[in-house]
Amino acid sequence: MKVIPLILMGCGGVGRQLLQHIVSCRSLHAKQGVHLRVVGVSDSKSLIIASDVKQKELDDNILAEVCRVKSDGSSLSKLTSLGESQVFSNSESRTKVLDIASILGKSTGLALVDCSASSETIGVLKEGVNLGCCVVLANKKPLTSTLEDYDKFVSYPRRIRHESTVGAGLPVISSINRIISSGDPIHRIVGSLSGTLGYVMSEVEDGKPLSQVVKSAKSLGYTEPDPRDDLSGMDVARKALILARLLGKCIDLGSIKIESLYPEEMGPNKMSVEEFLNGGVVRLDNNIEERVKKASLNGNVLRYVCVIEGARCNVGIQELPKNSALGRLRGSDNVLEIYSRCYSQQPLVIQGAGAGNDTTAAGVLADILDIQDLFP
Amino acid sequence: MKVIPLILMGCGGVGRQLLQHIVSCRSLHAKQGVHLRVVGVSDSKSLIIASDVKQKELDDNILAEVCRVKSDGSSLSKLTSLGESQVFSNSESRTKVLDIASILGKSTGLALVDCSASSETIGVLKEGVNLGCCVVLANKKPLTSTLEDYDKFVSYPRRIRHESTVGAGLPVISSINRIISSGDPIHRIVGSLSGTLGYVMSEVEDGKPLSQVVKSAKSLGYTEPDPRDDLSGMDVARKALILARLLGKCIDLGSIKIESLYPEEMGPNKMSVEEFLNGGVVRLDNNIEERVKKASLNGNVLRYVCVIEGARCNVGIQELPKNSALGRLRGSDNVLEIYSRCYSQQPLVIQGAGAGNDTTAAGVLADILDIQDLFP
Repeated sequence: MKVIPLILMGCGGVGRQLLQHIVSCRSLHAKQGVHLRVVGVSDSKSLIIASDVKQKELDDNILAEVCRVKSDGSSLSKLTSLGESQVFSNSESRTKVLDIASILGKSTGLALVDCSASSETIGVLKEGVNLGCCVVLANKKPLTSTLEDYDKFVSYPRRIRHESTVGAGLPVISSINRIISSGDPIHRIVGSLSGTLGYVMSEVEDGKPLSQVVKSAKSLGYTEPDPRDDLSGMDVARKALILARLLGKCIDLGSIKIESLYPEEMGPNKMSVEEFLNGGVVRLDNNIEERVKKASLNGNVLRYVCVIEGARCNVGIQELPKNSALGRLRGSDNVLEIYSRCYSQQPLVIQGAGAGNDTTAAGVLADILDIQDLFP
Repeated sequence: MKVIPLILMGCGGVGRQLLQHIVSCRSLHAKQGVHLRVVGVSDSKSLIIASDVKQKELDDNILAEVCRVKSDGSSLSKLTSLGESQVFSNSESRTKVLDIASILGKSTGLALVDCSASSETIGVLKEGVNLGCCVVLANKKPLTSTLEDYDKFVSYPRRIRHESTVGAGLPVISSINRIISSGDPIHRIVGSLSGTLGYVMSEVEDGKPLSQVVKSAKSLGYTEPDPRDDLSGMDVARKALILARLLGKCIDLGSIKIESLYPEEMGPNKMSVEEFLNGGVVRLDNNIEERVKKASLNGNVLRYVCVIEGARCNVGIQELPKNSALGRLRGSDNVLEIYSRCYSQQPLVIQGAGAGNDTTAAGVLADILDIQDLFP
C-alpha cells in the first residue's frame, strides 16, 4: 500500500469538501493501492496535527470533528486536543509545518495542499518545496505572485499540481501540460473562466438589463458578497496569468490588460455594495445593451473572456461568433478553446462546470493521487 | 537527467510520427530534465536494437533512416546494421525484446510502446508487464481482447497508458482517470468517436445521399481503403469497450450492441469494395434519408455514437437534440460528454480532432513523458 502523507492548509468550503472526499474514497483508494494520510489541518488561526507524524494520522473521526467545527463558523483553535492530536496557534503553526516537512518531505514527499485563498501560505509553501515537499494548490495566489515565487514553485515541475486553480476540477491544466510535453506548441488560448461572468453575459445577451442580471446573480449566490469582486475581472485575470505562465510567458498580473465591468468611480473605495447595487450598476445598463445589439448585428455575441496569444494576455469583453464554442456557451459553465499545431483549424475544447466546492475539491484530490509515483 | 528507455513496436504512420516528435522534442525534454532513449524499433518483420541496451540508444540518425526506409514502404529487414545497432528477424525479435525487458524492466522501467494495429503484440506486452515494463498503447487490440488479458494489463494501473486508443491525442483517458480517482462516479458517457462517421452523419444531415457522402469521404482519404471498415462500427465499438472497461465494467466486445451502417449481405465476404460503392451503398440512401427527416421533425439530428450507461454499452445511430454538444458537432471532430456527480446537469465536454498521425503520436508521447515518475 502506497501512503501519501499530507497537510491541508485552509479549511473553508473547498478544504472541508476535500476532507469529506478523502474519507468517502477510502475504499476506492485502497483498491488502487493508495492511502491518504492526513497528518495536519490548518486554518488562518490554528493547526491541528497528529501526535506522531511519522506513524499516525488524524483519523476519520477527528477529520469529521474538524469539518463540523469549521462548518459552524468556528476556528480550529476551538478544538482542544482530540484523540492523539495536538493543536497549535497561528504563531507556532508555520514552524510546526516546516518541522513536519523536514521529517517527511525528503523521505516520503509530504504533500502541502493549499485550499485557502490567502497570500500568507506562500512563504511556508516555498520553504516546503526546498524540503522536498509536493505542493497541490486550489489557491491561485501562490502562482500569481511575483515571477520569482512562480519560478520557485515550478523549479520541480512534477512536484507542483494546481488543476483547481483554473476551471475548478475541469481537466484544463493537466491537458495543457500534456500538450506542451508532447511538443505541440500552443499558440492561442481563449476561455470563459468565470461562471459568474458567463451567466451575466448570457443573460444580457437575452436582453435583460445588466443591473437586473447582477442582482439576480447575487441573490442566486453566483457572485461574491460584493459582486464587484467578480465584475472587476481580477479573478479571471489571475486564471489567465496562470495559463500564460504555463505557456512559458514571463509576465506579471500588472502586464495583463484587464477590462473591469464598472468604472473606477463605482469602486469599493468610492461606494458601498448597496450604493453600487441600488444606484451605480443601473448607470451601466445602456452601454452594455448597446454593445450587445452592435455585436448581434455582426452575428456575434459578447463574452467575457481571457485571450492569450503571442505576447498578448487580455481579459475583458470580446465579440465572438455566435457559432463558436464560446459563443454557444450558456449559463455558468466554463469553456476553454486551445489552438496548437494539432488543433489548428478547430480548437481542442474543454467545457463544463468550472466552480463549486465539490468539483474544486475533486480536482485537488485527483492532483494528490497523481503525485503518488513521486513517493518511494 | 531522467532517462526513459523505450522500444517502439509498429512503425507505420503513427510510429514514424512518434519518432519524429521524439527527435524534434529533444531540447524541450532536456529543459524538462528528461531524455527518451529509444533502444529498439520493430515492425511486423524485424527488430532493430542498439548494440548495448544498457548504455546505448538508436541515435537520431538511425531513427531518421528507420523512418525513411518505412516511408518508402520497405521493411526494417532491409536495414543491415546501422552504426552501433543490430537487426533481428521476426522469429528472433520476441525473445530479444524480452531479453531487453529482463535487463531494463525492473531496474529502469523500460516502456514498451505499441503503435501497431496488430493483435500479435499482446503476448510480448503481457510478458513485459511481468518483467516490470510500462506499456504505452496507441493500439486498441491489447485492451479489447479477452477480459483476462485486460486484467493483466491493468494489474499495475500506473504502468499502463493508452490515451491515443480513444480520440487520438484528445485528453479523454487521462481526464476519465482523474475523475475516477477523485471519487466522482461517472454514470454516463456519450461520444462521437469516429471522425469518419462524424463527417458522414453531418453531411447526410445536410441532405446529401449517403452513397455520395461515402464516396466523397473515401476520396478525401477520411475512410479506410474499404469504407465498410468504418461503416461497420467495429472501430467505435472497440473504443466504447475501452471506455466501458475503464469505468469498471467487465464486458467483452461481444456484449456490445453494434449497429452496422450496411446489412450483412453487403459485407466484405459478399461483395467487393467496388460493388459496394457502385451498387450496394446507393440502396441504403432512402432509409438514412427518412431517418434524418424523422429526427429533424423532432428537432433532433442523427449521430453515430457510443453510449455507456449502467450495464448498457451501445454503438450506433441515435437521435440527439440539435442543441447538445453532440448535436452541434460538424465535420470530423470527436466529442465526448461525461456525466458524473460533479457534471450531472451539464456534462463535461471534450472536443477536438480525434484522428491523424500527428495528434495520435502526440498523445503517445505525452503518455511516455507521464510515466517518468515511475522510473528511479
